[in-house]
Amino acid sequence: MTFIERDGNAKTVEAPAGLSVLEIAHRNDIDIEGACEGSLACSTCHVIVDEAWSDRLEETSEDEEDMLDLAFGLTRTSRLGCQIILTEESAVSIYEALKADAATAWDGYVAHPFVRSLADGSLPEACFRHYLKQDYLFLLNYSRAWALAVVKSQEVIDLRQAAASVDLLLNTELALHVKYCAGWGLSEADLAAAPEADANRLYTRFVMDAGLTGDLLDLLVALIPCSLGYAEIGRRLLADPQTRLDGNPYRDWIELYGGQEFQDGAEVARVQLERVAAGRGLVGDPRANPRWPQVLRLFETACRLEIGFWQMGLDAAPA
Amino acid sequence: MTFIERDGNAKTVEAPAGLSVLEIAHRNDIDIEGACEGSLACSTCHVIVDEAWSDRLEETSEDEEDMLDLAFGLTRTSRLGCQIILTEESAVSIYEALKADAATAWDGYVAHPFVRSLADGSLPEACFRHYLKQDYLFLLNYSRAWALAVVKSQEVIDLRQAAASVDLLLNTELALHVKYCAGWGLSEADLAAAPEADANRLYTRFVMDAGLTGDLLDLLVALIPCSLGYAEIGRRLLADPQTRLDGNPYRDWIELYGGQEFQDGAEVARVQLERVAAGRGLVGDPRANPRWPQVLRLFETACRLEIGFWQMGLDAAPA
Amino acid sequence: MTFIERDGNAKTVEAPAGLSVLEIAHRNDIDIEGACEGSLACSTCHVIVDEAWSDRLEETSEDEEDMLDLAFGLTRTSRLGCQIILTEESAVSIYEALKADAATAWDGYVAHPFVRSLADGSLPEACFRHYLKQDYLFLLNYSRAWALAVVKSQEVIDLRQAAASVDLLLNTELALHVKYCAGWGLSEADLAAAPEADANRLYTRFVMDAGLTGDLLDLLVALIPCSLGYAEIGRRLLADPQTRLDGNPYRDWIELYGGQEFQDGAEVARVQLERVAAGRGLVGDPRANPRWPQVLRLFETACRLEIGFWQMGLDAAPA
Amino acid sequence: MTFIERDGNAKTVEAPAGLSVLEIAHRNDIDIEGACEGSLACSTCHVIVDEAWSDRLEETSEDEEDMLDLAFGLTRTSRLGCQIILTEESAVSIYEALKADAATAWDGYVAHPFVRSLADGSLPEACFRHYLKQDYLFLLNYSRAWALAVVKSQEVIDLRQAAASVDLLLNTELALHVKYCAGWGLSEADLAAAPEADANRLYTRFVMDAGLTGDLLDLLVALIPCSLGYAEIGRRLLADPQTRLDGNPYRDWIELYGGQEFQDGAEVARVQLERVAAGRGLVGDPRANPRWPQVLRLFETACRLEIGFWQMGLDAAPA
Ligand code: FES
Ligand code: FES
Ligand code: FES
Ligand code: FES
Repeated sequence: MTFIERDGNAKTVEAPAGLSVLEIAHRNDIDIEGACEGSLACSTCHVIVDEAWSDRLEETSEDEEDMLDLAFGLTRTSRLGCQIILTEESAVSIYEALKADAATAWDGYVAHPFVRSLADGSLPEACFRHYLKQDYLFLLNYSRAWALAVVKSQEVIDLRQAAASVDLLLNTELALHVKYCAGWGLSEADLAAAPEADANRLYTRFVMDAGLTGDLLDLLVALIPCSLGYAEIGRRLLADPQTRLDGNPYRDWIELYGGQEFQDGAEVARVQLERVAAGRGLVGDPRANPRWPQVLRLFETACRLEIGFWQMGLDAAPA
Repeated sequence: MTFIERDGNAKTVEAPAGLSVLEIAHRNDIDIEGACEGSLACSTCHVIVDEAWSDRLEETSEDEEDMLDLAFGLTRTSRLGCQIILTEESAVSIYEALKADAATAWDGYVAHPFVRSLADGSLPEACFRHYLKQDYLFLLNYSRAWALAVVKSQEVIDLRQAAASVDLLLNTELALHVKYCAGWGLSEADLAAAPEADANRLYTRFVMDAGLTGDLLDLLVALIPCSLGYAEIGRRLLADPQTRLDGNPYRDWIELYGGQEFQDGAEVARVQLERVAAGRGLVGDPRANPRWPQVLRLFETACRLEIGFWQMGLDAAPA
Repeated sequence: MTFIERDGNAKTVEAPAGLSVLEIAHRNDIDIEGACEGSLACSTCHVIVDEAWSDRLEETSEDEEDMLDLAFGLTRTSRLGCQIILTEESAVSIYEALKADAATAWDGYVAHPFVRSLADGSLPEACFRHYLKQDYLFLLNYSRAWALAVVKSQEVIDLRQAAASVDLLLNTELALHVKYCAGWGLSEADLAAAPEADANRLYTRFVMDAGLTGDLLDLLVALIPCSLGYAEIGRRLLADPQTRLDGNPYRDWIELYGGQEFQDGAEVARVQLERVAAGRGLVGDPRANPRWPQVLRLFETACRLEIGFWQMGLDAAPA
Repeated sequence: MTFIERDGNAKTVEAPAGLSVLEIAHRNDIDIEGACEGSLACSTCHVIVDEAWSDRLEETSEDEEDMLDLAFGLTRTSRLGCQIILTEESAVSIYEALKADAATAWDGYVAHPFVRSLADGSLPEACFRHYLKQDYLFLLNYSRAWALAVVKSQEVIDLRQAAASVDLLLNTELALHVKYCAGWGLSEADLAAAPEADANRLYTRFVMDAGLTGDLLDLLVALIPCSLGYAEIGRRLLADPQTRLDGNPYRDWIELYGGQEFQDGAEVARVQLERVAAGRGLVGDPRANPRWPQVLRLFETACRLEIGFWQMGLDAAPA
């Protein structure tokens, strides 16, 4: 990658996939500020992208646009350096590699019969109700696991992103969930009173232990299938012409997880995963790192436990 | 304590100190909702207090007033049941007992020469600057310790209150701190670049270990001297006629910690401490519980480490 | 309880159940040394018991006898003060209270069909083989959980007892297990290669999380059903006339867990539980402590997960 | 090259290129049979290669495979010692790299004035006594940190090695320490009664937090300066002609840490560090791994805290 600095000098440096333009600059002593460290709270990482590349980058998010408006010397190809994550053809995203190598578990999870019956509205209500109650308890423990990610953060950006996830879960998602359940006749007291199912307990305690045993990367790998999988399920169902929305009692659910807000939150987690993996050497070809088998096993197990969670819902069907 | 229920029936129950009226109601199957479990986000715990008692309760906070305004059937002695914490004469608040039994350490902390020289503006700037840099690093690790409190929460209310503390620290306090430091010519990069002083590292790592070793109560006892001590310092300095505000370069600092927002945040933490202690049997006379010596030692050590933190600031004075 | 000191003075003090005579002495400033803090490595806690009481105490263990032989001024009613645990009629052992209040789960565990079919030798070999493989993985994680008890120890005696458990598990039990499995044609490589079953993973991760979330007492309560349950199963089967030993392929297993060495190890853990519970105020009537419901839930859940573990073995039966 | 003999003892010897592992063993009196003297006609030179090295050796020939099949206790990394010929390696030990890059802190630690005054016997007794008391408390917490390494172990070998360290510390070292202190007139009660000094608390709590925050490698890097540093100090002092042994009151101390038993224990920890580092990609050139700066900082901080520990001893000198 070539940087043209303010004084006109060009500097060409290595640009490993998984890093942001800002991070590549910092690794090479190129002077870009980036005061908020990529949390989209400043615009001091403003860069101007070569027109030839401009189209090949992922689209600018709305949040980035808003922040760019505050940048000095805006141009048509202006971007925030912290928001452009490199994904060369030659490089492999760890998330893509995990999905590919755990394809059976991943597919079994995101295309589970529970999901398909949500899509066509055929899921028995008893199953969904059981799922909703367990999901409430899941959210509480899943928040605890993200809090463990705060505990395990060694850099300010990780601290902030993990704390933002806790906040999103406990203040936004949980409230939405409670409100949503009310629409199904379940009060928060009903939710809290349900005994935790084994499939539920197994999943969250596995994630906690992955975090206690390993480092932040191990924990993120175990956390990610939930957020990114739900995002993928929501996106797929909305895009799939076979999905029935009209008159589908589960339409709200589909639109929640397919909606932009949830997609954006998941994307933040994905970028964090790539960044943390890069910081531990799982970049370029993550499969070449000796940690790969262990990391893959965590991801695969989490996917399998998601399957168990769906199955627990289906098994609640009335005889 | 006697409850008059909606249908006019009176029910008299035991009212141990340290519990809220809402908690006492729930323990005795008295029908008060309390949907938000005491986090001041609903007003479903609305109660009407007997006039005779009304004056003897602590004053209503502004937040409670706001929420009360949304309650149905408001009266002059309306209160939110979750905000009235019992403190009979016969009962001892654990916080008061800790301060009393660790009086030397506590006083050495809240009336440290560093504090007194903030109050009269005589503190050398170099000391304050050093303190500011270390406090930035402190906030990061202190947030991690509150995140550990999220991890260690077994009830929804603890989960939420601890998560709110993390959020307050990382999103409000840290930002304020960064902004405030900018006024002293210190950028966030300056703050992040400072090496962590031993007195600083010692304090936060001690708190983390208290949390890992013990339960939520142990952790809260180690966390509390910081929040409640700063609140007490701010309150005292503002109330003390000897404090110089005009032309005092540290006026902002005094007004920040003496201000209502910080006081309210600290109060939430205090109520949480009393509630968690009660849930573990340190209620009534906390000193009678076999855990007392251990819990007191944690509190006292944390106060001593606060003294070490102030002293680290003073020691940065130019020769 | 009345102590007659060396100088002939009598001192009467409260003697809460769950404490040892040595601990009661120390709490009341009575001069008994107890250099090894109850680990049967000194004999400095030597006491002479009143004849009237002598018969009402539990029998002296062989280890205690050996150590007593080294004591100065031995008498017929000599005992080591650290080995006499008070169990007045009026007082309830926390372990007994837990078993009583979780009776359904406890009985379902210790009298599971898997256990009964071990006793009469009717268990299909495939079930036992599957159980053995999973038990190997269980032992590894169960050792990790006892190591967490070391991490969480605040007193030297806890540190030592928990470390002794880790050592017993990893150095004695695991080696025995490996050797024993060899007799069933399973090499250590076979054991290590087996994928961890969900019922297995669920159990140990639940215990780890109980420890991370709570204090040492919470962790011990979650750890104890395994050690004490196996001890009870072994004892019962050996005592039960219906148990078939001759020609029973599972005879070794029964004799291992019913044998004195395992019984003694379990007893150390039981005494530790009572002592740690007493130190947190769950003494006298443990059910009166506000922590009781939470502690009981941990115990009950662990028993249920033991049932799940047996069931996992049964389910491996060939069709 | 390090051999771990059947009884678990580690022995490190020179490994000149061009020799086979079997030849190196024989030159150093290490007990490997090698009946056929390298002609691939026996399998009595069977060795198990450390996983970290396994991949880096030349591939096994078919003849070697055939002969290996006859070996007793075959594992996945089994080889015939006579067939592994050493080649010159450009690889850097992580331990050597850490010492080199943190040279100032390392040297300040292992050649501290406290150490030099132990060597010539000039250290004031008050300093040594203070050091002994603090070291007792240090050992307790340092054991807890090794127990955290058990908790964080993902492989059986790590579990066992970390548990062996806990055992060594709590059962051998602590007992030796207590006995040794008795010779200086300090009872275990004296040791336990001493308040923990800040320099002491800082060190162990830093290590615990390194473990909670990071993975097993981070924890080992923070743990290792203590064991390996003391081993190096003991070795150096014994080898240094300037060290005075005759009539030196600290002779026992020097001989304890310079002695073979302590050296062997430290060597096991060193080999574990290299293996764990290799398993996370810090092998070959550990400095090329993105984790290097973070890992180096942990090591350097631990060395600095060791300096603080010595200094705490010196500062106890009578005025
Ligand atoms: S660094 Fe702040 S927006 Fe990019
Ligand atoms: S319970 Fe919601 S405000 Fe009191
Ligand atoms: S205290 Fe040592 S044997 Fe009782
Ligand atoms: S010495 Fe015989 S095969 Fe190696």
